[in-house]
Amino acid sequence: MALIVQKYGGTSVGSVERIRNVARRIAKWRAAGHDLVVVPSAMAGETNRLIALAKEIQPQPDPRELDMVAATGEQVSAGLLAMALLELGVKARSYAGWQVRVLTDSAFTRARIQAIDEERLRRDLAAGVIPVVTGFQGVDAAGNVTTLGRGGSDTSAVALAAALKAAECQIYTDVDGVYTTDPRIEPHARRLRTITFEEMLEMASAGSKVLQIRSVEFAGRFKVPTRVLSSLTDPLVPVEEEARAGTLITFEEDPHMAMEQAVVSGVAAQRDEAKITVHGVPDRPGIAYGIFGPIADAGINVDVIVQNVSHDGMTDLSFTVARGDLARALRILDEQVRPHIQCRDITGDDRMAKVSIVGLGMRSHAGIAAKMFRTLAEEGINIQMISTSEIKISVVIDEKYAELAVRVLHRAFGLEQG
Amino acid sequence: MALIVQKYGGTSVGSVERIRNVARRIAKWRAAGHDLVVVPSAMAGETNRLIALAKEIQPQPDPRELDMVAATGEQVSAGLLAMALLELGVKARSYAGWQVRVLTDSAFTRARIQAIDEERLRRDLAAGVIPVVTGFQGVDAAGNVTTLGRGGSDTSAVALAAALKAAECQIYTDVDGVYTTDPRIEPHARRLRTITFEEMLEMASAGSKVLQIRSVEFAGRFKVPTRVLSSLTDPLVPVEEEARAGTLITFEEDPHMAMEQAVVSGVAAQRDEAKITVHGVPDRPGIAYGIFGPIADAGINVDVIVQNVSHDGMTDLSFTVARGDLARALRILDEQVRPHIQCRDITGDDRMAKVSIVGLGMRSHAGIAAKMFRTLAEEGINIQMISTSEIKISVVIDEKYAELAVRVLHRAFGLEQG
Repeated sequence: MALIVQKYGGTSVGSVERIRNVARRIAKWRAAGHDLVVVPSAMAGETNRLIALAKEIQPQPDPRELDMVAATGEQVSAGLLAMALLELGVKARSYAGWQVRVLTDSAFTRARIQAIDEERLRRDLAAGVIPVVTGFQGVDAAGNVTTLGRGGSDTSAVALAAALKAAECQIYTDVDGVYTTDPRIEPHARRLRTITFEEMLEMASAGSKVLQIRSVEFAGRFKVPTRVLSSLTDPLVPVEEEARAGTLITFEEDPHMAMEQAVVSGVAAQRDEAKITVHGVPDRPGIAYGIFGPIADAGINVDVIVQNVSHDGMTDLSFTVARGDLARALRILDEQVRPHIQCRDITGDDRMAKVSIVGLGMRSHAGIAAKMFRTLAEEGINIQMISTSEIKISVVIDEKYAELAVRVLHRAFGLEQG
Repeated sequence: MALIVQKYGGTSVGSVERIRNVARRIAKWRAAGHDLVVVPSAMAGETNRLIALAKEIQPQPDPRELDMVAATGEQVSAGLLAMALLELGVKARSYAGWQVRVLTDSAFTRARIQAIDEERLRRDLAAGVIPVVTGFQGVDAAGNVTTLGRGGSDTSAVALAAALKAAECQIYTDVDGVYTTDPRIEPHARRLRTITFEEMLEMASAGSKVLQIRSVEFAGRFKVPTRVLSSLTDPLVPVEEEARAGTLITFEEDPHMAMEQAVVSGVAAQRDEAKITVHGVPDRPGIAYGIFGPIADAGINVDVIVQNVSHDGMTDLSFTVARGDLARALRILDEQVRPHIQCRDITGDDRMAKVSIVGLGMRSHAGIAAKMFRTLAEEGINIQMISTSEIKISVVIDEKYAELAVRVLHRAFGLEQG
């Protein structure tokens, strides 16, 4: 008899038949006595279709107008899903972001949720109605439609769960949970029954596509128990069984769990990276800002940054960007950085990949990094950059070795064992 | 330097290239110094696609949810048109019905506009921004999305023009004006430069598809000068020339215009009608209500109603309904009317058409009806029902004669002459 927020991804509502299956699954949870709020994404392919249409009209679409157009995909699937529920005799009502309302800032195409009025939803819940709330979108204080950016429906669902203090946020997608690594690369990848919030955050930033990183941050900030599970299973599997499926993101470090927890929980890979090195810059305050300021102003996201120790007051500064941003980043460095900052050379290298191992267990285990580096060396894989956090070690390597690296690391850390 | 509301139909915004042409046309009017508010329909085919999707999920879609889904078509075209304008360097901003806001009642799928807050639009106009407002939709007092029903974008445009006291409402469509009759039936049909509001209303109710009848009613109530013109001409034709194109709906009976006005302005045909006759009913108060009450309760629209003089206290009552409603209407009469009202027989006849002649000149000319009936008789066309208003005469005939009737009447009343 708990309140549960369920999010269904684009594949899960990708056809009329799948929408019907989602409705059957929701009806099953409802029949088991739970209160539900449901958040659908747009039907698979629809957001891409709308964005392509916009770009045909305006190669660099106006962000406000793009949001106006892109937000319609979720409105359609929310309406259709409400109809599918009504057709099953389940009371339901769809809401667009502005109707709830989901208040965001005005950063069109990448807005951030600021507040959610849950009163309307509470009224529906009290009346036994299932609110079907569009994911991905909101409304700013001036009444403009905003969208949260790619994968934003995950964030919508977690934010609604936080606002409503839901017992659980269930993210239904086309995979049945979070794996030790991508099963398409390593067939022995194993589904994790639980993962801590911090590990999930590192996995997401390390390239795992299962959950959008902002939704994980949201889940962490508001301690929303969030479960990833598959919408492609039989929709009528018993509720008790489904409640144990998937992967649950946890917040407390359960001592019992820590006992059985492996040192490393997962291996993630991020392809399509590019490396840029600014060689021979003076090692003095302000240099990093001088380099990264113009890059940030151009809206280019920088991922790993590594600065080596200096020799004779000079150092090399390397960082990675998405491959698609490489040419633009190099042009900015050439035009806006080189004239102001003394440097020997600027080089770029596409075809890089970042491979990371993540695990809360690393905190108390020495030798993890050494084992990672030895494993890669034994396969002749050269490490070009290294970056570490308390629970993650990332290496940047030639992209052609990415899959090999994932497989050997998965084996080296014993992840295939249950 | 006038304020003009322009509405563009689904064909006019049916492709990226056509949206670009619409933007060029709008930019031209803007460059000529006019203030503009633009109302696009959904891209041609989109509303049908959305409704078909809804019916796949729920054969009788929930009206509230259907509106939620169907309203997205206009939101997409409004956003795209705003982008096309911005791409031309013209300031523009799109608005959904709830943003303006266009307040309607809560009759989902056929809502009626109650009020329009024009303040937001006035602010944009003052700032030189062209508001692009979704047609077809609004929001009710409880914040639900509503739609105005088929052709509702015409009504949206005329209502906005009324609220803003615009100098003219221009309805751009795929025909270049209102014709004396359908040019696909009578190649000598002639475009009318002006038509009075009353004539337009009768033409619309007589089957002319050029303007949606509710938009004509709106134009009449608020005396909005409304012009029908084509969006398929060269978008860069000079503004002065375009301002004289199409057909203008007028309100004052200009004496000068009346002089040159023909007696009959147009001939319209409505196919797909069916005739029902209730034979031998007692001619006493309450009978008509007893018959039409249950029909109206079932949501069936009755068009022409004719009751003949009675013989021995008994009369025949005939009326027409849309052909698709015939079977249902007959069933209702059999089940709900026959048990309560004495009658000899109830017969139905599909394959009927209504052919009408419309003209303000009829008011002061005798013999128009006689000429109409003689013309049809000379062609051997049997008249089954006759219905007249002050400026319209309609006859119901066998559908197979509909086109012949239109052509001979068009010729008989000299409509092909300029």
